[in-house]
Amino acid sequence: MDVKELLRPGEYVVGLDIGGTKMLAAVFDHEFRVVGQSKKKSKTGTESDVNASAEERVIAVITAAMQEAGSPPVRGIGVGSPGPLDPATGIIIDTPNLGWKNFPLAERLREKFGVPVLVDNDVNVGTYGEWRFGKVADCLHVVGIFPGTGIGGGIIVDGRLLHGFSGAAGEVGHMTVQPDGPFCGCGKRGCLEAVASRVAIAKEVAALAAREDAPYIKQKCGTDLSAIRSGVLARAIQNGEKMVEAVVRKAAYYIGIAAGNLVNILSPEAVVIGGGLVEAMPELYLEEVKRGIADHAMPFLRRKIRVQTAALGDLAVAMGGACMIAERIAEVRKT
Amino acid sequence: MDVKELLRPGEYVVGLDIGGTKMLAAVFDHEFRVVGQSKKKSKTGTESDVNASAEERVIAVITAAMQEAGSPPVRGIGVGSPGPLDPATGIIIDTPNLGWKNFPLAERLREKFGVPVLVDNDVNVGTYGEWRFGKVADCLHVVGIFPGTGIGGGIIVDGRLLHGFSGAAGEVGHMTVQPDGPFCGCGKRGCLEAVASRVAIAKEVAALAAREDAPYIKQKCGTDLSAIRSGVLARAIQNGEKMVEAVVRKAAYYIGIAAGNLVNILSPEAVVIGGGLVEAMPELYLEEVKRGIADHAMPFLRRKIRVQTAALGDLAVAMGGACMIAERIAEVRKT
Repeated sequence: MDVKELLRPGEYVVGLDIGGTKMLAAVFDHEFRVVGQSKKKSKTGTESDVNASAEERVIAVITAAMQEAGSPPVRGIGVGSPGPLDPATGIIIDTPNLGWKNFPLAERLREKFGVPVLVDNDVNVGTYGEWRFGKVADCLHVVGIFPGTGIGGGIIVDGRLLHGFSGAAGEVGHMTVQPDGPFCGCGKRGCLEAVASRVAIAKEVAALAAREDAPYIKQKCGTDLSAIRSGVLARAIQNGEKMVEAVVRKAAYYIGIAAGNLVNILSPEAVVIGGGLVEAMPELYLEEVKRGIADHAMPFLRRKIRVQTAALGDLAVAMGGACMIAERIAEVRKT
Repeated sequence: MDVKELLRPGEYVVGLDIGGTKMLAAVFDHEFRVVGQSKKKSKTGTESDVNASAEERVIAVITAAMQEAGSPPVRGIGVGSPGPLDPATGIIIDTPNLGWKNFPLAERLREKFGVPVLVDNDVNVGTYGEWRFGKVADCLHVVGIFPGTGIGGGIIVDGRLLHGFSGAAGEVGHMTVQPDGPFCGCGKRGCLEAVASRVAIAKEVAALAAREDAPYIKQKCGTDLSAIRSGVLARAIQNGEKMVEAVVRKAAYYIGIAAGNLVNILSPEAVVIGGGLVEAMPELYLEEVKRGIADHAMPFLRRKIRVQTAALGDLAVAMGGACMIAERIAEVRKT
């Protein structure tokens, strides 16, 4: 069903992106134009509402977006949240960052706002947004990979999000790409995230800086991993720091190895890459991911594959969530 | 739909397994009991029909199975064949072993036998058989891995075979598990098949034999890779050849690493392992695959996972094909 036919004129939906560091809520009209938007930091102890719980912040950011939109009639709320979570019930299983453990997020928002609420993994919802509104809307089989501080993935099979038995399929960042490789934040070794995330890159680049092999990085960030963000990596490469470029290219190539493996397993029509690193260095990432797929996917499976950068930026999760709840509303209306 | 309700009493279907070395056709009644069966070598230049083409052999083996069954009314034929192939059209794209290139197998069999014909990848069809008739018939999400001379895989998502955009998804054997690892028959490096197939094991074990570190193997097989089959590996381990056991365990553990990656990506409810190596050493393979999943899959995704050995042996592909064509017949009847 065309996205423009899901809602009727005068109907609105809310999309909510609960990130590790910030929350973004947006109100969309029936043609999925943003008519109101609000942002907040995710962590408690920040901003003016220093004591507000994550739940109170979520409610406040939705309310603010609705008010900015002029409080129109909202029909539903679609949420992308860090996991693990159960998309069937909308229960967040364990997100220490937000202080949630077996927290019934969908139910709480349903009670508060009196409309249907859908909750899914943030990267799933972002991939869905990119699929429905980005450059790959014509594909039935899509894989999304989003390298940043961590590495998330979302999988569309036959035009539907792949959830699997646990509801949490698509943990692309924790595929083992280097058995006996470096330790990952999850406790395993050699995960894609441990060799190709921004933190993994920063670790190598900080060592270069410490050895005076990356003077631009040394000058801007010292040897502090947290300071070595995607933007400064891109500028260091523009400034000709060849060893920084080699480190980033190697990490990007590992994203390509993982993409190649996903092509072998899932045979998608398109691979979408996004997130902070890709936004800062789109050409480099496209090159290395295509090279990784060429080297690691079977010829017959990668023959017509398209590799695209994400198109929606910060709005991907909110748009995906809004579309997913609008689809559910349209389905219920049909029956 | 229950398998026993797909066909009506008095209706029969044929399942055909076209392997690299042998073909097996079986006729099934409406309760999927074998009522006739026939086997043939796949390669031309063997047996009495030394000049028969692969197509002639396929027709002969089906005809022989039907005759053994007393020539009952057959409603359809379901075929598992080596790929790549297009399951939508039943065209075999390229199988040098059988001399087929863009060969319209489904169409030829339809013309010859006058009934609907379905063709899919042999490992897909085998996984389907194991799913419908084996130990995991109650699961909606299943991954099958079959290590042998090569390594094949089949994936069931939401109760349907995953085909992907190309029709050839599930190339589990060509996932890269060791970047820069040994060369694979496909031309890539570090594929699961290159480190965990029977040939990869035989390569290491032959070297042990050459160095007098595996006297049982040396005595039975010399240092000939082709002679080192699954059965002799199992007997060498029973005879206490510790280094042979270590080689096989390492290969089996790599199957477990791949299984762990597939759990992270697909979140299946069950993993089924089968094929020659697993049949010869089921306990060893179960142990190592479970260990690989424990080490490499995310805790939330592997929590309730079941790892099972295949139950149907040589009949898996024929039963899977028979069931798939019976389902199509039942679907058409409903509409």
